Amino acid sequence: MATFSYLAYFPVRCSSNRDSYDPNKQKLNNIKINGTSTKSTTKQVEAGVTTTFTAVASVTANGYMTEQKVRQNIPTTKQSVDHFRQGITIEGGVGYRQRVVVRSYEVGPDKTATLESILNLLQETALNHVWMSGLLSDGFGATHGMMKNDLIWVVSRMQVQIDQYAIWGEVLEIDTWVRASGKNGMKRDWLIRSQATGQVFARATSTWVMMNRKTRRLSKMPEEVRAEIAPWFIGKQAIADDVPEKIVKLDNKAKYVNSDLKPKRSDLDMNHHVNNVKYVRWMLETIPEHILESHQLSGIILEYRRECGSSDIVQSLCDPDEEGMLIEGLKQQENRDMNLMNGFSLAAGILEGGGFLGFEKQPLRYTHLLQINGETKNEEIVRGRTTWKKKSPTTPFSSM
Amino acid sequence: MATFSYLAYFPVRCSSNRDSYDPNKQKLNNIKINGTSTKSTTKQVEAGVTTTFTAVASVTANGYMTEQKVRQNIPTTKQSVDHFRQGITIEGGVGYRQRVVVRSYEVGPDKTATLESILNLLQETALNHVWMSGLLSDGFGATHGMMKNDLIWVVSRMQVQIDQYAIWGEVLEIDTWVRASGKNGMKRDWLIRSQATGQVFARATSTWVMMNRKTRRLSKMPEEVRAEIAPWFIGKQAIADDVPEKIVKLDNKAKYVNSDLKPKRSDLDMNHHVNNVKYVRWMLETIPEHILESHQLSGIILEYRRECGSSDIVQSLCDPDEEGMLIEGLKQQENRDMNLMNGFSLAAGILEGGGFLGFEKQPLRYTHLLQINGETKNEEIVRGRTTWKKKSPTTPFSSM
Repeated sequence: MATFSYLAYFPVRCSSNRDSYDPNKQKLNNIKINGTSTKSTTKQVEAGVTTTFTAVASVTANGYMTEQKVRQNIPTTKQSVDHFRQGITIEGGVGYRQRVVVRSYEVGPDKTATLESILNLLQETALNHVWMSGLLSDGFGATHGMMKNDLIWVVSRMQVQIDQYAIWGEVLEIDTWVRASGKNGMKRDWLIRSQATGQVFARATSTWVMMNRKTRRLSKMPEEVRAEIAPWFIGKQAIADDVPEKIVKLDNKAKYVNSDLKPKRSDLDMNHHVNNVKYVRWMLETIPEHILESHQLSGIILEYRRECGSSDIVQSLCDPDEEGMLIEGLKQQENRDMNLMNGFSLAAGILEGGGFLGFEKQPLRYTHLLQINGETKNEEIVRGRTTWKKKSPTTPFSSM
Repeated sequence: MATFSYLAYFPVRCSSNRDSYDPNKQKLNNIKINGTSTKSTTKQVEAGVTTTFTAVASVTANGYMTEQKVRQNIPTTKQSVDHFRQGITIEGGVGYRQRVVVRSYEVGPDKTATLESILNLLQETALNHVWMSGLLSDGFGATHGMMKNDLIWVVSRMQVQIDQYAIWGEVLEIDTWVRASGKNGMKRDWLIRSQATGQVFARATSTWVMMNRKTRRLSKMPEEVRAEIAPWFIGKQAIADDVPEKIVKLDNKAKYVNSDLKPKRSDLDMNHHVNNVKYVRWMLETIPEHILESHQLSGIILEYRRECGSSDIVQSLCDPDEEGMLIEGLKQQENRDMNLMNGFSLAAGILEGGGFLGFEKQPLRYTHLLQINGETKNEEIVRGRTTWKKKSPTTPFSSM
């Protein structure tokens, strides 16, 4: 299982002025978020942070540790505003919303945000949500109860649906929150919206379980951990919890295979495991170039099986999903039948579908597998399914 | 020459409320920057933006174009505050300062910002500076005069010095400004500082020239373009303009060679050229693993020769710089002699240097070359030099 996880080292939010080097500095020094949050809330936040800073500095004798703590500063109480990240709590204080601007290096050749950038932003907002919670015991995101029990969070499943890709410079608002998942797990959801129009661009959901940090085995959730996190659970779902369709395990009969993939130094995350984004890159690189040119990913499901370390040699398998095409073809036929019943002509259906059987317009689906090539057996890292739709002629920049 | 350039598509900054979907939304809807900037300035900015938005929307009949313009919104007048990016003008209105938080995916296994992230942030702040200028004629960063003459900016040289690497979650302030460079060029500088302490973490400088978009040949700067941009020039230098030491061209005698490097789809920028960060990754991947483990990059110089397209096959050459080692050894010997003259003992020198000749502590230097393997001849993409220093025992997280 990959640790797309709750690692969270956090920064100083020190509000004292050290502006001697530039008279303009104070302009940026107190960014406040106006609106329903009151001045007293803001002050409380700043005061809380200053207290934390002082306390931390006083308990460490070693000069280096002091500096590091000053630079990270984990809040010991729940925060409602994060000035620097433009984040606030929502959903009565238990959800988190962050405003982000799509940066120039987060877009691909078509000038829309890449899937990798979207996954990065999901990770980032999840971490910032936890930072705001005041639950952190260490810099790595474990709660007090988790630390005591040597537990960490690991993600077992991730699903993202993308209706529209944000363009370079576009302002987004990302909401994230957590909810219950059985006795021992937790789900985290996200909604990505255009700040300008409120239109939902993407939805995501993920399932998390607990792992013992030392044995690397999954663990039950201790009562004290449940007591810590349950107050944060809400009932809202970004994507309905349908019974998930099984992702079959591919074998060497898969149509596309990339072998001998070796993680590079720059592919490792803070855990020294291959990062989630690299997994997705390896998956997508098996898909034929002409599909990537003419289509855009509209959905991805990832089922994590084990971690991939820096010395593992990886194989990426990919197979187009014939069944998916068939189902989709039937669905379109059904829609067409419905249209006929409703008085629409078959011709309209043909025009919409791009062909009588609709095979040109239906979403394409691929099944994926990343595995470690072992000497005696292969070990699964992650199974995946991607869904694609034809780029519309109005996709931003598609004609440029 | 690589187009690490002034491409600039920019977002809507529309301040109207469309909050029906969530009562919390308004909390984030009016982020104001308090301090010396007055309320009237803020209002003026918002009014300017709203006007631009309306004007753009009214001149386009095509629904798609309208939507795209709404999402990008290039200001037609100079702005002094960018709420969403936490940016302000400095240096009397001609420089730019942006506050950024180092994100979880911008750090490497040692939890410090990667060189790639730093280069990305330099690009981002440069683009945002241009956006604020109100000089943009199109979304791609050309001024009105440049558009008229089919000119684009290309970078010919880039130098970055890094004293300290920011850690995950650390808040940075990045200043950037432009200055004159001969008759036909421009320089852009950056300073990266810790927001908490004001300490300068990194300095960077770059040289830019004009290229004809159609012929892809370098061009003189027309008078009208000079008149547009010269008011933005200031005299400040982030790194002193010394006569640069020549970077020799490596050949197949180089100690380390990685061949057959093929750009992937995810390596391409909005120009469909290989992005700058990928160049640096290819360069650094030739350096032995034990050096990357024990050292950190303290300086890099890149001299761009030509663009690299998606179908080029690239070779990365790297050679340790013996001369650099010798010069540094002599410098250390000189320091030791000075110390002796000043009454310090030789033993102290040995302790500091880590050895009598100081060869264990001196910065390592490497010369780099990326070239395209052609059938008849090789073509240079970029020459580089990297300087490295031993990671100090107090480097954050180095022992983890």
